[in-house]
Amino acid sequence: MEFSAQQIADLIGGKVDGDPGIKVSSLSKIEDGQAGSLSFLANPQYTPYIYKTSASIVIVNDDFAPEENISSTLIRVPNAYQAFAKLLEVYNQLKHDKSGIESQAFVAESAQIGANCYIGAFTYIGENVVIGDNTKVYPGCYIGDNAKIGADGLLFSGVKIYPDCVVGNSVSLHSGVIVGGDGFGFAPNNESYDKVAQIGNVIIEDHVEVGANTTIDRATLGSTIIRKGVKLDNLIQIAHNVEIGENTVIASQSGVAGSTRIGKNCMIGGQVGIIGHLTIGNNVKIAAQSGIGNNLEDGEIVQGSPAFSVREYKKSYVYFRKLARMADDIDNLKKQMQSLQ
Amino acid sequence: MEFSAQQIADLIGGKVDGDPGIKVSSLSKIEDGQAGSLSFLANPQYTPYIYKTSASIVIVNDDFAPEENISSTLIRVPNAYQAFAKLLEVYNQLKHDKSGIESQAFVAESAQIGANCYIGAFTYIGENVVIGDNTKVYPGCYIGDNAKIGADGLLFSGVKIYPDCVVGNSVSLHSGVIVGGDGFGFAPNNESYDKVAQIGNVIIEDHVEVGANTTIDRATLGSTIIRKGVKLDNLIQIAHNVEIGENTVIASQSGVAGSTRIGKNCMIGGQVGIIGHLTIGNNVKIAAQSGIGNNLEDGEIVQGSPAFSVREYKKSYVYFRKLARMADDIDNLKKQMQSLQ
Amino acid sequence: MEFSAQQIADLIGGKVDGDPGIKVSSLSKIEDGQAGSLSFLANPQYTPYIYKTSASIVIVNDDFAPEENISSTLIRVPNAYQAFAKLLEVYNQLKHDKSGIESQAFVAESAQIGANCYIGAFTYIGENVVIGDNTKVYPGCYIGDNAKIGADGLLFSGVKIYPDCVVGNSVSLHSGVIVGGDGFGFAPNNESYDKVAQIGNVIIEDHVEVGANTTIDRATLGSTIIRKGVKLDNLIQIAHNVEIGENTVIASQSGVAGSTRIGKNCMIGGQVGIIGHLTIGNNVKIAAQSGIGNNLEDGEIVQGSPAFSVREYKKSYVYFRKLARMADDIDNLKKQMQSLQ
Repeated sequence: MEFSAQQIADLIGGKVDGDPGIKVSSLSKIEDGQAGSLSFLANPQYTPYIYKTSASIVIVNDDFAPEENISSTLIRVPNAYQAFAKLLEVYNQLKHDKSGIESQAFVAESAQIGANCYIGAFTYIGENVVIGDNTKVYPGCYIGDNAKIGADGLLFSGVKIYPDCVVGNSVSLHSGVIVGGDGFGFAPNNESYDKVAQIGNVIIEDHVEVGANTTIDRATLGSTIIRKGVKLDNLIQIAHNVEIGENTVIASQSGVAGSTRIGKNCMIGGQVGIIGHLTIGNNVKIAAQSGIGNNLEDGEIVQGSPAFSVREYKKSYVYFRKLARMADDIDNLKKQMQSLQ
Repeated sequence: MEFSAQQIADLIGGKVDGDPGIKVSSLSKIEDGQAGSLSFLANPQYTPYIYKTSASIVIVNDDFAPEENISSTLIRVPNAYQAFAKLLEVYNQLKHDKSGIESQAFVAESAQIGANCYIGAFTYIGENVVIGDNTKVYPGCYIGDNAKIGADGLLFSGVKIYPDCVVGNSVSLHSGVIVGGDGFGFAPNNESYDKVAQIGNVIIEDHVEVGANTTIDRATLGSTIIRKGVKLDNLIQIAHNVEIGENTVIASQSGVAGSTRIGKNCMIGGQVGIIGHLTIGNNVKIAAQSGIGNNLEDGEIVQGSPAFSVREYKKSYVYFRKLARMADDIDNLKKQMQSLQ
Repeated sequence: MEFSAQQIADLIGGKVDGDPGIKVSSLSKIEDGQAGSLSFLANPQYTPYIYKTSASIVIVNDDFAPEENISSTLIRVPNAYQAFAKLLEVYNQLKHDKSGIESQAFVAESAQIGANCYIGAFTYIGENVVIGDNTKVYPGCYIGDNAKIGADGLLFSGVKIYPDCVVGNSVSLHSGVIVGGDGFGFAPNNESYDKVAQIGNVIIEDHVEVGANTTIDRATLGSTIIRKGVKLDNLIQIAHNVEIGENTVIASQSGVAGSTRIGKNCMIGGQVGIIGHLTIGNNVKIAAQSGIGNNLEDGEIVQGSPAFSVREYKKSYVYFRKLARMADDIDNLKKQMQSLQ
């Protein structure tokens, strides 16, 4: 894909300042710009780079007034950052323009595939599966019997969706995501464990994105639910019967144990662990590596394992670092006390 | 799959109280029951729901005496919970009733596949592989050369088993499980690292279940061993030459480093880390997020990173939360001491 | 593969002491040696085992003088450990001797596959992909459009490489490794989040090894870079725009957040978390389960969450375990102080 400065200016409503015919085929940061790439300057801290960059085109704010020679062609727009973000978006859409069913895919006769879908080779679409329009399922995926996937979705190579699970519209699932594996449910008998059959499913609502190799277990009964707008990073564990509220964001390698309900608009750091059967409120923030063992109210901000108020935690931790000195002080006080007595 | 109240009553030895012809096709919790679903009432706390549920059929204890109108058909049995668990089991078995080798699978000529197996499309069965009767290998799995899988197994979509590994009977491996990747062994030379070849294997004994995306590395020499009845949750790391004793249960995202031996009937929480070359006794319990740096005796219960007695840990943590106040007390005592002196 | 004692002695430059025709087909530890296996004795601590082992052949040092009867055939060499390591290496190479493109693979017409490569069934090679000589891509992998893989590589079953990523020579990627998934970038709008398009790539340099189910995200712009000789264990998360310096080693389940740069020759333990936008120097050591929230200088050795000097951490932790007693001491001092006053 190659575009001229004029084509890009037309796309983002800008004005070319330089050679309208110069062509670019990639995007770059201004400090790394190479010939043939397009970059942008929004943050004034990066201004010095515009005089040195080899980027062929740089998008700048209308009011940018260079103080030295610039070799790049400029495109002037009201807001350089927004214009560049729009280009990123277009570029990204072009990347996912595949459509059709590749001949080495397996699609059950009873499955319904929407218009303009892509089904890659070695992808398996089971009985009664329904896939909405414009959804792209890359090679090597598995969609189990009776699963439903909405429209405008992206399932990258190697996603596995167990039978009966439901995925909404505009959902992106990255490679290695597992949706609907059995919950970890075992009933102790005398010497070993009996498996508790896990016959619920997983429901993922619209506009959710799930990172690579994250696992979301099916419910024992009922559904594990990922609400609208949730963003999950890579390698996260969501156990059976968990519910995650709208627009909550969870960073990599965190885990949520069975039947816990998390509210809306929470921000949960990386490597956090949350035990089972808890209720976490809305707008809660949890620092990375924290361990949550109790319910949390709306708006709480916590840290530690087990976690408590982040302010209190940081205070305690300051003294944790000084503990040896505190112990010496106590020893001295005891000696002084003895000599006084 | 649709069943009438009478068919279900016959299956679980119950008596229909209502319409014997009413049909259900799914199972539900009583509080979520919809028309066409079957539910149960065992815990008296849930009794109020039976008067509101839309479940078409509810299994109840023989002695249940309704105090209001109930719209559902009842099936009376001696123990409603056990009867429902039995149904779950049957339902689960019906889900895994596929058999035969799908035409897009690859099965090496030298491989031996047992009776009533299912080998899904895009699954690769290497040279000399042996698979026991009734084992179901879902689409997109890989079984490397010379590997052996027992009878009555479930390998969900995307399981990868490296060459020479051995899996027992009645083992369930969920999607994304990797068995037999190289152990993490490197010998430092002057500037970089030489790989230590990893030529052992992994042995998984009978009745083991392994959760999605868990990784179990092959031994450097000899075998990494997962003993009978072990249950591993999702996203767990088992390093080379580890041995995990019978019926030990490990929760999600925990990791065990190389050559550590864990005893029988242990319960290990989520996100626990255990360093290498340790011996952990039988019946040990380790709290979530703990870090184990020393051997543990039979029956120890520990928490912390590094971990020690859970009771001591909890005591210390109470004072950790009060550290700022303790520091103030010490300061005050120092001042008072000075004025006394 | 079966070899006689004489064949092995020729290969490693040793002298047979026993039956030159005896054959072995596997390698074993001396304490586990079975008939048909080859073992070695290097560490004198293991000498007692040589009198009991059933290994058919044992490699020993030239100067080994048995004090009892030995049933195994010996092969004498100057350095038994080195000779055995050499055999391991040969054995390992024999394991990866497959070549050719299996008929059920998908290779785009525009892709270039080097000499002596292996492309397994159900592996998908996209448009314009370039793969160097002798690289083995096992079944069920996915190499996205425009990706480049060097020579002498091993991509085990189920590796997924997104479009445009670059992998060097002699790189081993274990099953389930995901290279180039989108970075976790979202810009908050009023109520939810807008995705920030991730259009950079991942560059993995030569002699890197990556463990099973590890995920390495593509850069937002530019590249996420894994430098020469880096060794990553299983289930690790490397976020967008991270750079990891030469020969740095990271143990299982650690995570590095976006845009952090890690120096050369670092050793990072398991389950470590490192927040984003940090600079970690060269030769840094980080203890398992630590949380890194600040830049680290060359050569620092740290522990804790948040981490500080490992020596200071260990000291503080000694007193953390005694906190209840310290609190009692303070209480006593306060009482004594009161009675004095």
